[in-house]
Amino acid sequence: MPPHLISATAAATAAAAPSNCGGSTLQMAKGRTDPPSPAVDEELAKRAGAVFPGLKWTRTPMAALTQLGAPAFYERGYGARLLGADGREFVDLMCGFGCNFLGYAHPSVERAVNAQATVGACLSGPTERSVELAEELVSFFPHADWALMAKNGSDTTSIARLICRAHTKKRVLLVEGGAYHGTPAPWHEGMPGVLPEDHAHQINYVFNDVESLHKAAEAAGDDLAGIFAGGFSYPLAAPAQMPTKEFAQACRDLADRTGALLVLDDIRCTLRIDARGSWAPLGVQPDISVHCKSIANGHPFSAMVGKDICKDAAAKIFSTGTYWVSPAPMAAALEVLRIVKESDALERMHKAGDDICNGFRALAQKHGVAAQVTGPHTMPIITFDADMAEAGNTRDRPRSVAFATKVIDEGVLIHPTHNFFLSAAHDARDVEQVLKAFDAGLAAVKEQFAEC
Amino acid sequence: MPPHLISATAAATAAAAPSNCGGSTLQMAKGRTDPPSPAVDEELAKRAGAVFPGLKWTRTPMAALTQLGAPAFYERGYGARLLGADGREFVDLMCGFGCNFLGYAHPSVERAVNAQATVGACLSGPTERSVELAEELVSFFPHADWALMAKNGSDTTSIARLICRAHTKKRVLLVEGGAYHGTPAPWHEGMPGVLPEDHAHQINYVFNDVESLHKAAEAAGDDLAGIFAGGFSYPLAAPAQMPTKEFAQACRDLADRTGALLVLDDIRCTLRIDARGSWAPLGVQPDISVHCKSIANGHPFSAMVGKDICKDAAAKIFSTGTYWVSPAPMAAALEVLRIVKESDALERMHKAGDDICNGFRALAQKHGVAAQVTGPHTMPIITFDADMAEAGNTRDRPRSVAFATKVIDEGVLIHPTHNFFLSAAHDARDVEQVLKAFDAGLAAVKEQFAEC
Repeated sequence: MPPHLISATAAATAAAAPSNCGGSTLQMAKGRTDPPSPAVDEELAKRAGAVFPGLKWTRTPMAALTQLGAPAFYERGYGARLLGADGREFVDLMCGFGCNFLGYAHPSVERAVNAQATVGACLSGPTERSVELAEELVSFFPHADWALMAKNGSDTTSIARLICRAHTKKRVLLVEGGAYHGTPAPWHEGMPGVLPEDHAHQINYVFNDVESLHKAAEAAGDDLAGIFAGGFSYPLAAPAQMPTKEFAQACRDLADRTGALLVLDDIRCTLRIDARGSWAPLGVQPDISVHCKSIANGHPFSAMVGKDICKDAAAKIFSTGTYWVSPAPMAAALEVLRIVKESDALERMHKAGDDICNGFRALAQKHGVAAQVTGPHTMPIITFDADMAEAGNTRDRPRSVAFATKVIDEGVLIHPTHNFFLSAAHDARDVEQVLKAFDAGLAAVKEQFAEC
Repeated sequence: MPPHLISATAAATAAAAPSNCGGSTLQMAKGRTDPPSPAVDEELAKRAGAVFPGLKWTRTPMAALTQLGAPAFYERGYGARLLGADGREFVDLMCGFGCNFLGYAHPSVERAVNAQATVGACLSGPTERSVELAEELVSFFPHADWALMAKNGSDTTSIARLICRAHTKKRVLLVEGGAYHGTPAPWHEGMPGVLPEDHAHQINYVFNDVESLHKAAEAAGDDLAGIFAGGFSYPLAAPAQMPTKEFAQACRDLADRTGALLVLDDIRCTLRIDARGSWAPLGVQPDISVHCKSIANGHPFSAMVGKDICKDAAAKIFSTGTYWVSPAPMAAALEVLRIVKESDALERMHKAGDDICNGFRALAQKHGVAAQVTGPHTMPIITFDADMAEAGNTRDRPRSVAFATKVIDEGVLIHPTHNFFLSAAHDARDVEQVLKAFDAGLAAVKEQFAEC
């Protein structure tokens, strides 16, 4: 029997083995040694297909990109760029779906993480990093009286659900119909393995539609526990909507009037709209906000901050995760928040977003293509008017697909129907390459479609 | 307005800022500089109390330990030991609740992780590490035809629920009454914020009780989707039970007869009972098994492996997590599995477990204390017969508390009512210190209790 198959019983009868901390002098597992090339990427995709179910080897939205010519695998990231396993370099406008905020492999963030390597990955109890970071989060977000830490975004949205219900002793949660505030999302209903009970006491509203919000609240009767809303509304394959002041205030008023909690789901938007929380420019504070992705520059960490009013409920709900006390991702978050406060990182990200979005608008006009850039300039989505007019209830967006295909071919990674992400690492050279690719992409759309 | 409060609107009008990748030359956030001491630990606990809700700054079961004299915070881990923020060193028998498998801050695991720092924490798509690790998992576990990767243990148990229901198009899951197979656990029912619907179509059985399993299956009628079982039964504050061959086979037969899936929840037990999966010594293979904690030596990673029969269901269910493609924790898992195969790590862990458990039994006899060590020797739980006789329906275990208090005072970190964990780093010197502490702990019990 090979040694890794040894069982407890076998071990019990095994001869005494030396008790030194072995393994430390062994060689590390060796990866591939040939340089990235189209053949390497193809080979990896083929191998992945053999050991993963379906497309579970990649992020769900990335599967679409390989069909548009993007590589299936990536070698590494640096700054705003990615090296594909196919050997091509891309300016990356997907940013790890929000993870890349200061630049991939950011030197001081990685140094902060590596400095924790001598601490141990995950001890039996918490370290000082937990306290430092909780204090920083409470000081950083104006609405924060307390903080909690976890791993995934959905850890924190799930905890938020528990807190709403524990705080109010009521059941109903209002959520945006098309949005993803963790599992189960409204659009998971009827998907494989999902039960009707998974969506119990959850009522949908339409973002920015105060009447639909009030109608949902009415349907909740006196059983309203919480109102979940995103930093903005970002449906797939459709224009984004920034929250109106009227809608945000209506959410706040509804919570105040009923005693329900207002939960700002800033998982996707953290630091990209307003560092104080995405609704801060509207003057509306949530009771709870949840944060992820950008906050530790892609290191596995999520956080929740909340107001005193629901601190007791947060204390008494049960939630646990093995790795939630891990110090290294907390060190990354501490470094990210320090850089946000002490450098011009946010200004640089906003400038890159403005240059790219305004640049696209000018190019669309030049080509005579009717297209919209919506959402915050740091997380824009591009839609083509003729696509939207023809789409009906489908998600067919042939012009978006033609545009993305050409832009990817020009070395800029974008998604046809998902919002992009800017980072503080996108510099003038990156912006120039993006606009050159957009120019070519718009020309391709104009050439391929009579109506645009 | 300070720079971190800048909003999208403000940025849009801001003057052009330099676009270099700033922040990289700034200093890292500085932690405490005074050495660990009781005052430092007290101060950290006080600060934590001000910014966390209740005891949410620590792992739930660790809160009990501070009341028994353990520090609230830890400075770092090395091998099998922890340095408390109070300045005391402990031989750690809690092992990060399973995370510490090869030793804290294991050199080659940390090297493998740090080597990924130049790759980027979390790219827009997957890296070669995903393929390497999925192939390794499929080759490592005899029942594995495919693999999936996530972060938390509960990510994988939640995905397992979806797969059971998607595969069978049925609803009912059978679970061990007292066990925690992710959220919601049977004992979460009625806890703050938890709804009856959260437990819909979930029926409890009693571990190792074939009749109760069949009764639960009968109650499920023809709606049985899955059977969840742990590597062994490890209730809090009670003796553990290893699965009987009869019970494991009854689970397998029930799944085969009904078409339901058998899910082995090995989150806590991975690599500690049998490297092939905890039921392998019984000759019973699950359809799906889930793994965590030890598998990446505490780096945030969880995995699921499964049989071909449910690969289609695994492909079609929706599941997503921002950080699930992160390469660094995968590099840790690859290195752990390599060490398991190529070194005597498992034998050393089993030997340390045998020495500690058999040593305790001899000491209990010497002191005339009636106590049991149950569960696998690598994850034992100690119970005192007189505690169990007096307990009734309570979790009061005064002898366990007295024992743990003395053992902690002697420099060995244990929990009074939770199982311990051995690691491959527990060497002869650690075992000697543990047995010396157990000797003192048993003497304290004998002295404090007339009945023992």
